[in-house]
Amino acid sequence: MRRNTKDAELRERAAQVIPGGMYGHMSTAMMPEGYPQYFAQAEGTRITDVDGNVYIDFMCAYGPNLLGYRHPDVMAAVQRQQALSDTVTGPGEPMVQLAEAMVDMVSHADWAMFCKNGGDATTMALMIARARQGKRKVLVAHKAYHGAVPWNTPRPGGVLPEDRAHLIYYDYNDPQALEDAAKQAGDDLAGIFAAPFRHDTFADQELPDAEYARAARAVADQHDALLIVDDVRAGLRIARDCSWETLGVRPDLSAWGKVLGNGQPISALMGNDKAREAAQKIFVTGSFWYSAVPMAAAVETLRIVRETDYLEHLQRIGTMFREGLLEQGRTLGLPIKSTGPATMPMVLFDDDPDFRFGYAFCQAAMERGVYLSPYHNMFINAAMTEDDIRRTLDATGAALEHVKKNRASIEPPAALAKMAALVAEH
Amino acid sequence: MRRNTKDAELRERAAQVIPGGMYGHMSTAMMPEGYPQYFAQAEGTRITDVDGNVYIDFMCAYGPNLLGYRHPDVMAAVQRQQALSDTVTGPGEPMVQLAEAMVDMVSHADWAMFCKNGGDATTMALMIARARQGKRKVLVAHKAYHGAVPWNTPRPGGVLPEDRAHLIYYDYNDPQALEDAAKQAGDDLAGIFAAPFRHDTFADQELPDAEYARAARAVADQHDALLIVDDVRAGLRIARDCSWETLGVRPDLSAWGKVLGNGQPISALMGNDKAREAAQKIFVTGSFWYSAVPMAAAVETLRIVRETDYLEHLQRIGTMFREGLLEQGRTLGLPIKSTGPATMPMVLFDDDPDFRFGYAFCQAAMERGVYLSPYHNMFINAAMTEDDIRRTLDATGAALEHVKKNRASIEPPAALAKMAALVAEH
Repeated sequence: MRRNTKDAELRERAAQVIPGGMYGHMSTAMMPEGYPQYFAQAEGTRITDVDGNVYIDFMCAYGPNLLGYRHPDVMAAVQRQQALSDTVTGPGEPMVQLAEAMVDMVSHADWAMFCKNGGDATTMALMIARARQGKRKVLVAHKAYHGAVPWNTPRPGGVLPEDRAHLIYYDYNDPQALEDAAKQAGDDLAGIFAAPFRHDTFADQELPDAEYARAARAVADQHDALLIVDDVRAGLRIARDCSWETLGVRPDLSAWGKVLGNGQPISALMGNDKAREAAQKIFVTGSFWYSAVPMAAAVETLRIVRETDYLEHLQRIGTMFREGLLEQGRTLGLPIKSTGPATMPMVLFDDDPDFRFGYAFCQAAMERGVYLSPYHNMFINAAMTEDDIRRTLDATGAALEHVKKNRASIEPPAALAKMAALVAEH
Repeated sequence: MRRNTKDAELRERAAQVIPGGMYGHMSTAMMPEGYPQYFAQAEGTRITDVDGNVYIDFMCAYGPNLLGYRHPDVMAAVQRQQALSDTVTGPGEPMVQLAEAMVDMVSHADWAMFCKNGGDATTMALMIARARQGKRKVLVAHKAYHGAVPWNTPRPGGVLPEDRAHLIYYDYNDPQALEDAAKQAGDDLAGIFAAPFRHDTFADQELPDAEYARAARAVADQHDALLIVDDVRAGLRIARDCSWETLGVRPDLSAWGKVLGNGQPISALMGNDKAREAAQKIFVTGSFWYSAVPMAAAVETLRIVRETDYLEHLQRIGTMFREGLLEQGRTLGLPIKSTGPATMPMVLFDDDPDFRFGYAFCQAAMERGVYLSPYHNMFINAAMTEDDIRRTLDATGAALEHVKKNRASIEPPAALAKMAALVAEH
């Protein structure tokens, strides 16, 4: 029997002093019942909740855990730098080393700027695209997530129409929609945002068509606008480079975050020389953007990225997870899907419009020690072993059998109904 | 003779891979010549640049260093938490402990939300003020710094007029200007921003008139709008509470940052129950907002804030620095001013319209091992001793004599001319 006494106690205390008890993407409000909100420990592939329950974690802190939690080499770099300096009256040498390492790694880029949130990097990209020639229009794919500030947050609360003035929305992967949107912008087109692949919540993921990616580049060039790839979520899980390098398409700007310091707080905007002068025209900054410890962690993370087969390992392990799961679905006659790159799978059921089967499946897997998401893409980390995947598949196999057996009586998730009501109310 | 070989080498490398060589508030582009850009070490009150030059640091990382760099108790808390978890798939217990400690400490507040940048907290305040009743207008003091995103960054590059739609500017400390601005907003007034005191760059600081602060509260109440105190820069250097508590004026929201984790990256928005429901209506988040290490550091920082006389020490040391400096000015017949709270002094010269004397003074102090700013308020930290201030005054005394002796030949600072040209150009 799973314990949740301590988690329940913390939730109760949090309800007093945190609006809604929790906020943002790490709130479990939309998760299946019983998911723990609070964690006490993390090591390698495992997270332990405050009640001592251990899970193989397929969310990886929603991305940052690339190499395994508390990776010894990264932690050693953190501790070495911590003994010297962190947040001081100026940056340290690691900032220059990191900018050089990033520019070496990212083919399209000539320069780097570091920040804290992924949304800092995408907002800087927006500002640079506009600062460059004073043009205003920026194309963004419908439903794409590029951060949670007024110009891009996915919910309407506290946002004015003016915050999104001069944004034009297009359908991802549709070259014609992109061209139509550009036509609408006319000679006022400053930039085009694109996720490296379609990774919206509650939807199957879609890899980018090369035709769409090439059209994005061509439209940007025709309009002398900047092409921006938002690699915050996918960076370093598709390529040791900007993700669109695999398609042969180079953006002018790319936004990075999450994985760069393997969990240490750092994000980055990378750009080419076409965007350098505009980057000097904007004033952006933050209290902790120059801190040396996360930069030292990132320098070490990039060394491991360069010198090891972590990426091939992610792909091998991710494929083993995907194929095992799909095989289980076929065997049981359950229409389970796993979409997107194997290193960042989204797992949904066909014919599951209210997500009841997906939620029941994840809940059953969670109770068996495997932490999955029923509505957000998941993440593979490099500490995962074949044995971890075998244990995971033991849990998912049992969870699928549970779904099959209880199919007729599974209710739609209460969390989603509550959320839908909340959104409708405002 | 000060060495700067390594700093020069790093600057040269940075010029290749970072736009303009550096960006934001930690760029030394506007500092007097010879100021180091890169630091290698920090301990207590001292920072050591990459060439081994040591300075008594009066910038304190532009605020975060409240208790001394690498404070042993805070670092012990950091290391204890680091051994358990940091950036994971959910928050840890320190998030609840910290929210409780903040709510206990900040009289006006019933809840807390944590983030990374000070600008995250002020942007959340803006969104909550608007989300509450769908009203749009927000009052902001001219020239006040509330962050560096499109709605508030102090330079125009990359910003559209729409980003500032529905902001109305008023003169700080002028109750009539505030009331006029509110009148202009009419029944569309959502919120009023106020710094705890006037701390604009390149200008004498001004403490708030109680009449102005009371007017801000009254106007907010008349309009059923939210009063927001931006305590990101001044927090915990004026009071063990919101800074305006010293005036008997309680805001609905207050933004915090910089000092909370004594250098660990964390900021916060605090609010009362009037703003709680609106806080639940906005969707804001960030990859590293839930990380446990900075929260554990903040829990320990707040314990020290509660249990020690750090604040009285800051005030005593700050007053000793201020009085010593003013005495030196009087003795030498130099019209030096020190404005604002003694814990956050701004030091400028009278009759110094192009800042040439202030720049020459700071440069001479820097060459003597004291790091001051000629255009930004400075910060006292609790590790500073009377002996540090005596050493500082030895350096400032010699620096003032240098200014007096060379008065006729001191040139206006080249950095400011370059900056003015850059701003004019765009």
